Amino acid sequence: MRAMDVSWLDMTVTPAALVDLDRVEANLARVAAYTRQRGLRWRPHTKTHKTPELAQLQLAAGAQGVTVATVREAEVMASVCDDVLLAYPPVGTERLDRLMDLPPHVRLTVALDSSEALHPLAHAARRAGRTVGVLVELEMGMRRVGVQSPADAVKLAREAAYSSGVEYRGITFYAGHLRLPQAELGPAMRAQSERLLAFVEALTAEGLRPETVSGGSTPTLWRSHDVAGLTEIRPGINIFNDRNSVSVGACEWSECAYSVLATVVSTAVPGQAVIDAGSKALAKEEGFDASGGYGALLDMPEVRVHGLSEEHGLLDLSRTDWRPRVGDRVRVVPNHACASVNLHEKLHVMRQDRHVATHAIAARGW
Amino acid sequence: MRAMDVSWLDMTVTPAALVDLDRVEANLARVAAYTRQRGLRWRPHTKTHKTPELAQLQLAAGAQGVTVATVREAEVMASVCDDVLLAYPPVGTERLDRLMDLPPHVRLTVALDSSEALHPLAHAARRAGRTVGVLVELEMGMRRVGVQSPADAVKLAREAAYSSGVEYRGITFYAGHLRLPQAELGPAMRAQSERLLAFVEALTAEGLRPETVSGGSTPTLWRSHDVAGLTEIRPGINIFNDRNSVSVGACEWSECAYSVLATVVSTAVPGQAVIDAGSKALAKEEGFDASGGYGALLDMPEVRVHGLSEEHGLLDLSRTDWRPRVGDRVRVVPNHACASVNLHEKLHVMRQDRHVATHAIAARGW
Repeated sequence: MRAMDVSWLDMTVTPAALVDLDRVEANLARVAAYTRQRGLRWRPHTKTHKTPELAQLQLAAGAQGVTVATVREAEVMASVCDDVLLAYPPVGTERLDRLMDLPPHVRLTVALDSSEALHPLAHAARRAGRTVGVLVELEMGMRRVGVQSPADAVKLAREAAYSSGVEYRGITFYAGHLRLPQAELGPAMRAQSERLLAFVEALTAEGLRPETVSGGSTPTLWRSHDVAGLTEIRPGINIFNDRNSVSVGACEWSECAYSVLATVVSTAVPGQAVIDAGSKALAKEEGFDASGGYGALLDMPEVRVHGLSEEHGLLDLSRTDWRPRVGDRVRVVPNHACASVNLHEKLHVMRQDRHVATHAIAARGW
Repeated sequence: MRAMDVSWLDMTVTPAALVDLDRVEANLARVAAYTRQRGLRWRPHTKTHKTPELAQLQLAAGAQGVTVATVREAEVMASVCDDVLLAYPPVGTERLDRLMDLPPHVRLTVALDSSEALHPLAHAARRAGRTVGVLVELEMGMRRVGVQSPADAVKLAREAAYSSGVEYRGITFYAGHLRLPQAELGPAMRAQSERLLAFVEALTAEGLRPETVSGGSTPTLWRSHDVAGLTEIRPGINIFNDRNSVSVGACEWSECAYSVLATVVSTAVPGQAVIDAGSKALAKEEGFDASGGYGALLDMPEVRVHGLSEEHGLLDLSRTDWRPRVGDRVRVVPNHACASVNLHEKLHVMRQDRHVATHAIAARGW
């Protein structure tokens, strides 16, 4: 059996996206235990894997619903989950039409930060005979989206509460700028907590107490309980982890469950080896820390990918005695799992070196 | 008619990949005229568009064959072209099997830099009853792939010349590290020319004169004639151009033929607007120059994309009086067209604002 399975890794086309199922299960069990212990709801962001079979694993492990970023993700995840948060402003007729076409039993909630997004949504929901939940998106320091002030939050929450077709359900934020080592997270999380409290108090004073307070990310995952009032977290990357998760201490290297299988295609230039996983397989994303590179070998993390072209990854051999040969196969953990997964058509699920399933990454695209 | 067509741009799902056909045709006519005038063969790299319909335009404009980087691209392009160069070492059983399954009338040539790549290829070709052309890949300063010295080139060329199943056809290189403004290219191109001459002389002295000498890139495109002995060029990006092509002066902004249509989804954070084209639509690739950002608006290049999350692009409004509203639509030219195209399923072909065709980007994946 084992010989046959090693052969699968040896013989499949590369580059190929691999998922270590044992590690996925352990990662999910850990966050399930944490959220249970802390009284938090767990609504994982499925943009990381875009794969309904993996969302099912998350739900089976205790997730109470899923988060999506695109309408395509909403459509695909609605096939396996009846509680979907679109953490994205549903702007545009096409988006609204498709959202309204989700199966009627799906409890849909949407995050938004403007009247311009709210009113067309409410109009579309009324026409479709649906009630869509609304979370007011808060800006908590990332400077991406979100209302700036408690007064703005009150104004938009009130509009949502008074509009038919939609139902005001609370507030949401994403502190994606917090990419600190775990030991340095404390002050940042307390600052989040204070900023959030100001919003909650202003809303509550106006009779708009948020039933849902949704936050969380993988880098801040294990300190989510430091944010007072949080009811729900939406970590995405945590199911797989990646080189960035390790660099901020949100996981150990041995908890990385996603890698890209690649073949050495050239050793002609001294000091390096070239693999067939380039930017179109790994994604050319700078890492969170200053150590450089775009990924590292799962089995030899001292070997970094120090350069990427579209179909070439350059392995830096300066920290290893390993001297690969053309045809050798390696597994690369990228800096950012979500960006890499999105470049593949399929996820190959493994237990140890045994291939157990291949899933289409069904929610790619828009 | 025009009202209906503007409506296409207003109504289609975003983000969406757009191609300006007038500009594509002009870009192709320009390179066709240049190569004709300079006596160079033109073998465009189709990894940029991965779309057989666009390869057909290139062939109709005068391209003598196509270049591909992956077996998937070879398979797809073989449906429209019978002269295919795989500019990539064909390492691995799966790659070789699929290459041998290309239609028999396809004249296949392969670039490689090692005996380890050559001999399995020759073996597979003999078994399949094919003759596969070989170009010896030279390292010309990029430090990615390619033999290092004239002696190594002679050794590998001789192995190819003496192996049945393969046919030694010449040499190839890619100087992807040359990303200089056009005015500064002269000395670099002369250095290329000298380095190349040493390879050609060594090969010729051993009775291995390269019939094909294949090089070229979009940044160096218009100075290809500075490299003595070059017989063929393989520009890829040139069909579309991109922000990097403009930054090195290989084209004008008005020659950018590829953009991503996006919708403004948030203006809540002052000084910026957020669009729904993020790193999963534009690709998060640093630009060649120091001006920063990941793209700029086709119609307002002073408006840069200064930040990217997966589904969010942040437009910097500091250099414009334009104040977008939620729901507005814009077209973004990314830094690197190839990386962006690869993130989309379809290319929407436009003449002015009129939608004339939609093509599947059929050669994505491996």
